[in-house]
Amino acid sequence: MTLNNINKLTEVSRTLAKVAMGEACADVVIQNGTLVNVYSGELLENMDVAIAAGRIAYVGKADHTIGEHTIVINAAGKYITPGFLDGHMHVESTMLSVTEFAKAALAKGTTGIFMDPHEIANVFGAEGVRLMHEEGQQLPLKVFTTFPSCVPATNDLEDAGASLDVKDIKEGLTWDNVVGLGEVMNFPGVVYGDPKMCGEIEETIKAGKTVTGHFPSDDDRMLQAYIASGVTSDHETVTREQGLHKVRMGMHLMIREGSAWHDVKEVIKVVTEDKANTDNISLVTDDVNPQTLVEQGHLNHVVRRAIEEGVQPVTAIQMVTLNVARYFKLEQDLGSITPGKCADLLLIDDLRKMEPSTVITDGQVVYENGRLSVDFPRFVYPEHIRKSIHVKRELTAEDFKLASRSNQSTTQVNVINIIENSARTERGTATLAVEQGIIQPDAAQDVIRLACIERHRGTGQISLGFAHGFQVKSGAVASTVAHDSHNLLVMGIDEQDMAFAANELVKIGGGMIVVENGQVLAQVPMTIAGLMSEKSLSEVFTEVVELEQAWKQIGCLLNAPFMTFSLIALPVIPEIRISNRGLVDVTQFKLIDVEIT
Amino acid sequence: MTLNNINKLTEVSRTLAKVAMGEACADVVIQNGTLVNVYSGELLENMDVAIAAGRIAYVGKADHTIGEHTIVINAAGKYITPGFLDGHMHVESTMLSVTEFAKAALAKGTTGIFMDPHEIANVFGAEGVRLMHEEGQQLPLKVFTTFPSCVPATNDLEDAGASLDVKDIKEGLTWDNVVGLGEVMNFPGVVYGDPKMCGEIEETIKAGKTVTGHFPSDDDRMLQAYIASGVTSDHETVTREQGLHKVRMGMHLMIREGSAWHDVKEVIKVVTEDKANTDNISLVTDDVNPQTLVEQGHLNHVVRRAIEEGVQPVTAIQMVTLNVARYFKLEQDLGSITPGKCADLLLIDDLRKMEPSTVITDGQVVYENGRLSVDFPRFVYPEHIRKSIHVKRELTAEDFKLASRSNQSTTQVNVINIIENSARTERGTATLAVEQGIIQPDAAQDVIRLACIERHRGTGQISLGFAHGFQVKSGAVASTVAHDSHNLLVMGIDEQDMAFAANELVKIGGGMIVVENGQVLAQVPMTIAGLMSEKSLSEVFTEVVELEQAWKQIGCLLNAPFMTFSLIALPVIPEIRISNRGLVDVTQFKLIDVEIT
Repeated sequence: MTLNNINKLTEVSRTLAKVAMGEACADVVIQNGTLVNVYSGELLENMDVAIAAGRIAYVGKADHTIGEHTIVINAAGKYITPGFLDGHMHVESTMLSVTEFAKAALAKGTTGIFMDPHEIANVFGAEGVRLMHEEGQQLPLKVFTTFPSCVPATNDLEDAGASLDVKDIKEGLTWDNVVGLGEVMNFPGVVYGDPKMCGEIEETIKAGKTVTGHFPSDDDRMLQAYIASGVTSDHETVTREQGLHKVRMGMHLMIREGSAWHDVKEVIKVVTEDKANTDNISLVTDDVNPQTLVEQGHLNHVVRRAIEEGVQPVTAIQMVTLNVARYFKLEQDLGSITPGKCADLLLIDDLRKMEPSTVITDGQVVYENGRLSVDFPRFVYPEHIRKSIHVKRELTAEDFKLASRSNQSTTQVNVINIIENSARTERGTATLAVEQGIIQPDAAQDVIRLACIERHRGTGQISLGFAHGFQVKSGAVASTVAHDSHNLLVMGIDEQDMAFAANELVKIGGGMIVVENGQVLAQVPMTIAGLMSEKSLSEVFTEVVELEQAWKQIGCLLNAPFMTFSLIALPVIPEIRISNRGLVDVTQFKLIDVEIT
Repeated sequence: MTLNNINKLTEVSRTLAKVAMGEACADVVIQNGTLVNVYSGELLENMDVAIAAGRIAYVGKADHTIGEHTIVINAAGKYITPGFLDGHMHVESTMLSVTEFAKAALAKGTTGIFMDPHEIANVFGAEGVRLMHEEGQQLPLKVFTTFPSCVPATNDLEDAGASLDVKDIKEGLTWDNVVGLGEVMNFPGVVYGDPKMCGEIEETIKAGKTVTGHFPSDDDRMLQAYIASGVTSDHETVTREQGLHKVRMGMHLMIREGSAWHDVKEVIKVVTEDKANTDNISLVTDDVNPQTLVEQGHLNHVVRRAIEEGVQPVTAIQMVTLNVARYFKLEQDLGSITPGKCADLLLIDDLRKMEPSTVITDGQVVYENGRLSVDFPRFVYPEHIRKSIHVKRELTAEDFKLASRSNQSTTQVNVINIIENSARTERGTATLAVEQGIIQPDAAQDVIRLACIERHRGTGQISLGFAHGFQVKSGAVASTVAHDSHNLLVMGIDEQDMAFAANELVKIGGGMIVVENGQVLAQVPMTIAGLMSEKSLSEVFTEVVELEQAWKQIGCLLNAPFMTFSLIALPVIPEIRISNRGLVDVTQFKLIDVEIT
């Protein structure tokens, strides 16, 4: 491990040995806490932890390590736990830069993440991954990367900003702290021998690193074929039965509690009711949005949820510390409070509340008394990353008018029926009016216009369609967060407003916007690749709250409508999507016409 | 992992996937057994295991994988467990070649070992390690090596046949299936920063491999300094308290049950009484002799012992399968019956008896119905390895006569007092007669002659001394197994017999011998480096039984006297030893005179 500013074990082990022996003084000693011992599974009272050179030198009664310059921290009445490690997450979902996310996460006790920068990879390829990874390396949060495995999501149905091939993955795996392959979503590709997927897995195994998975299916034979192909974890499990089966099959089971995915309640029964061994199970967030970060927390919220469901606190903590470190082969550096490990630890008053009062990384207090206590370096993304929205020309109302091929006064069209709180869509149809040759949206039927505009190379390509279910009555919305290719997605009743929303969003460098009658109601500028804000969590949170309010104002009362909206372009989840190339039938993986002839 | 004849996962994963999907047929299907699931910690009934290309393709109801050419093995009424892995052992202790040991071990369900070829390293250095390692690579037993770390045991007190330095370790760590550094016995060296020890640890960590330990002390500060230096396991624990403390400190606790070390009874209380988490605990043999192999078994005996002490069978089996594989970062290849893993598994009728009826490695039945069912390749050691006893000239009775410096009729000498069933010795004194200037042994006082003859380079160096406690009344014994330098050790009353024993042993190429009145009573020829026999277990067992009988015949009624004898030259265990350079005071690490002036 060679994170910036962090001492390698072999470089400081002499110092640690001297401190343990009482021949040198510790930099910091935490005194008299109740230690959460994730190896033995015990709570041990009246324990000290001596720290030197950023690592743990001695655990127990450590008076002999205290010298004149030793900082002594009183932990009486508090628990001392290892810092929490999030084994699978996407920083992009937080809408924050890695730096701003780190500030929020550290305050909640997350001291290490294993991020899959899949979204930026679809926009800027290996360069984007590298930038986010590098940003992470200068932070007091330990940022490990699993290299995105499935970029783009499809080959022929859309145009992403970039693609990653086996060569890119091989190269990326040589970077320090790239610890594996990101969630291998194309599980049919793995099972049926797609050379790209198999090549990526092979390179990862050859590099001695970890192949992380994504297996949302119930098909047991495919699951076992997938595991036999070298994939060793999954975070898509939603039932107890799937969870137990995956544990039995040797998969590292990541139980997820994200903003949109609440899997703990059901899947934790593998632990609480099936009583399976827990050493190959962890808790992860996958995707959390700014509201969740502000209102519930980060990984500490997931741990709290597991405890609420009946898991012993020490066991729940093991699932975000030792188990994660071990899965990624970092047990010698992370995941426990034992000699030699990085001194990443938390003081917590109440294991049920799970709110850290003090957060220490590499032996340094980074959060205390409700505030961060270190400066975070500024990371500036290059100009072209911050100006990533490339459309051929200013958009006009005409661009959003879909001409009918028929000469009738009505026509039948395919419609994307969205489902609240679900990533799935259904293929529906609607009969719409044709006026002056243009197919008209129909608010009465809740059928509105949809457009997906290529925004990476300025090709001018625009596809049009219709969506049902958003209840939008006026105005328009636009987003450059549009999974996974992140083209410019626009939706609305009024074609003038659609053009206005698109043009305004291009102007501010991407993000999300809601407009009405030529006025911006709310916007969240996301200038990093059109995916992440450069502002702080509290600022982004305010913007997102305003954005949600604006969605309501134009008629949409759905829960988290921008999540549903941003997934409408993802052509790997059934049944029907829109990409920059057109309407996609995801059951057949082909482009289809909007009009039904 | 690239053991000979074993398919890498990435090379066969396509085949495995096809079999799992029912698109190709399995080579072997084991049907209807009760599966020992070491991940979930369960016994699962009516399970099949489908095997292809030497690895596991599917687990569950596997009818869809059976084709015309599939071999079907009925496991009804039997348990199916992963093959057992011995996380720390010395093949040399078995007195057998790796090949002959493998035959014995496989029949007992051991399918993989992590050997530390420390003894041959003291005779032939890296070449010796390489030869044993290579012998292991062609066997159906999986042989992994931890590279010996402490060769020679001391720098200035003895002459071994070879030494290993940091460069040798670095080179050895590049060999396939050298998975770490062998037990780091020189723990004071580690703690106090000996450059050789620290360099070896650093190279091992850099190589991403495992640093195995040896920490027999009760000193907690030294222990933590040792752990902070990068050592991650210990197998020298003899008390429950030490064991629990090591688990708490993050050490992989190897609980040992060898021929001479019976640690399970006490140390397993960490599991049965302290209820510590078991995922970082394993069971190992360390040293087993031919009698134990014949009469009790190998690792299956240790598992049985743990179960007798109250450990759940599934937990005990985890401690010789998954936990070991994970500790050595081989979890993707070994240690469980899950898709993709090497098909190394056992069928066992009764988990309390723990005797496998069928042993399968890499999908092939290697043991069934009480006999081995595959041919083992012959491995021939080079001539110089098989002719390793180099003395300057034939020895004579004169060589064993120690002249007194005094001109009195008696003199006082330092004596090595041996302790039955212990590796320790005590420093004693005796008053012995001096006849014609020669100090005489005294059977009445149980004080006999001792000699250690340099045997690696034929320097002619001989040191003489006296031992107390063997009860030998006549004859002589000699051994080229003389830890750790393995010089030629001779002991006896009669100097004629001592010369005879030494010369006979040189003639047969090393090993152990007992003589009386110019007759060989018994001998165990060990032509491989003077340490291992080339014969089968049953032949060596017979020879060893005869040797023990011969020890009795010359008066020694101790338990396993040849073990005690072979340790008398080990100058790292207190209090007093004999090396080829002379008598060693191990409390002060210096050579001392035999006569007390």
